[in-house]
Amino acid sequence: MHTRTVFFISDGTGITAEAFGNAIMSQFEIRPRHVRLPFIDTVDKAHQVVRQINHTFEVEGKRPLIFTTLVDMEVLKVVSGCKGMLMDMFATFVQPLEKELEIKSLHRVGRFADVSKSKEYNDRIEAINYSLDHDDGQSNRDLEGADVILVGVSRSGKTPTSLYLAMQHGLKAANYPLIPEDFERRQLPPALMPHKKKLFGLTILPERLAQIREERRPNSKYANLVNCRHEVAEAEAMMRRTGIRWLSTTTKSIEEIATTILQEIRPERLIY
Amino acid sequence: MHTRTVFFISDGTGITAEAFGNAIMSQFEIRPRHVRLPFIDTVDKAHQVVRQINHTFEVEGKRPLIFTTLVDMEVLKVVSGCKGMLMDMFATFVQPLEKELEIKSLHRVGRFADVSKSKEYNDRIEAINYSLDHDDGQSNRDLEGADVILVGVSRSGKTPTSLYLAMQHGLKAANYPLIPEDFERRQLPPALMPHKKKLFGLTILPERLAQIREERRPNSKYANLVNCRHEVAEAEAMMRRTGIRWLSTTTKSIEEIATTILQEIRPERLIY
Repeated sequence: MHTRTVFFISDGTGITAEAFGNAIMSQFEIRPRHVRLPFIDTVDKAHQVVRQINHTFEVEGKRPLIFTTLVDMEVLKVVSGCKGMLMDMFATFVQPLEKELEIKSLHRVGRFADVSKSKEYNDRIEAINYSLDHDDGQSNRDLEGADVILVGVSRSGKTPTSLYLAMQHGLKAANYPLIPEDFERRQLPPALMPHKKKLFGLTILPERLAQIREERRPNSKYANLVNCRHEVAEAEAMMRRTGIRWLSTTTKSIEEIATTILQEIRPERLIY
Repeated sequence: MHTRTVFFISDGTGITAEAFGNAIMSQFEIRPRHVRLPFIDTVDKAHQVVRQINHTFEVEGKRPLIFTTLVDMEVLKVVSGCKGMLMDMFATFVQPLEKELEIKSLHRVGRFADVSKSKEYNDRIEAINYSLDHDDGQSNRDLEGADVILVGVSRSGKTPTSLYLAMQHGLKAANYPLIPEDFERRQLPPALMPHKKKLFGLTILPERLAQIREERRPNSKYANLVNCRHEVAEAEAMMRRTGIRWLSTTTKSIEEIATTILQEIRPERLIY
């Protein structure tokens, strides 16, 4: 049962408002109800929002918590009149920054005005396409263009990490599975050798790997713990021998894996 | 040329610190240098950070801007002693919230302590796998399990949007291309008909579509403007006829498209 309602209000998508609010709320051991209200970009919509917040307050008997990233001052003024507890990211920090920088802020909604004209945005879509085309060793074409190349056994976390690096950071991330043939040759896939600087290895505890693979293919040799132990030991030995950087993904989120890779590889082209 | 340096400092990945800082900085027409400092989780590292900031101040002659989401009070205290302009998201909002909620905050780093034990996290990885397996009409298997099914002509934005919905919102997003066979039959792919409520159409201006396709396959019929006009007109007529909801992606970012879809479809299972 929730005992509070949290509103995330923005003139744009509300993604920043939610990231902001969720980060703050993660510091408290309560499970409030979440209401996202994106695209609140007119005074009329602002008045509707105020009615919705005040109604919630009357029903629940507790002040709703309101996280906003509103840049339109007219809209913000209306929302500020509500009976919730307002936490406004922009008003709090933008005004002191105007003083520090001695320039006026733009009051601009969102990161992209028109994405079709943004090079940054187009680069990001290109990176997503690149990473999809180079998922799971599908293609050796244009590996020179890769910012990062991940290697590891099947289900060590390469695909979600590659897609995250592309989507959030605009990086072209290829990934290659390490398979029995590589272990027999005791060498990384030959196509990767000229790109050693961009290689990053992912490994995982065999017990966790067996569990993940079991969900995918129950009772298979693929998911068998003895087999997983063998593959992981071979893969780690190969990473050590080749001298590439690597980490264990066992208890890490995609975000933590990606952040560590960025710190280690430091790709030249880093959009975000 | 940059004239300022902005630091993003966090005990965790720094993703929230960056989202926070970038949102604020997007309101100013300056291009500062970005320095991300994740995993600052000891007093020792904090002292190093202070030295780095103070050095930057001396070199540039202007106060660096510091966005932090530090939850460790000892670390925060050290960083607060630097010569930059500190904007701390947690101290600013968490303390007033402790009063409002009448509970102490957790001072916890990151969203997941150990991802392998988090159902929310595992659901998200499963959603990414689902969306990859159901990209571009690859599979009709388990469409009942989909939260959203996107349809549209090739390169209208279905794949990046599906992956974004999976990665950020933990939604199982399938996508299906609309192809000449569908236009001839004047019907959506038959496998989709039982799932009409979950369908969402993406369309795009033919001129923009031709431009995107031209980059992919130069001088092809696929990229030809007359062909693009025909496909888009047929696809839009089909969406209208079938009565599914749809939008034009021409000038919209993945984030804006995803937010609009969530508002319209309102999937029951919405993790973030």
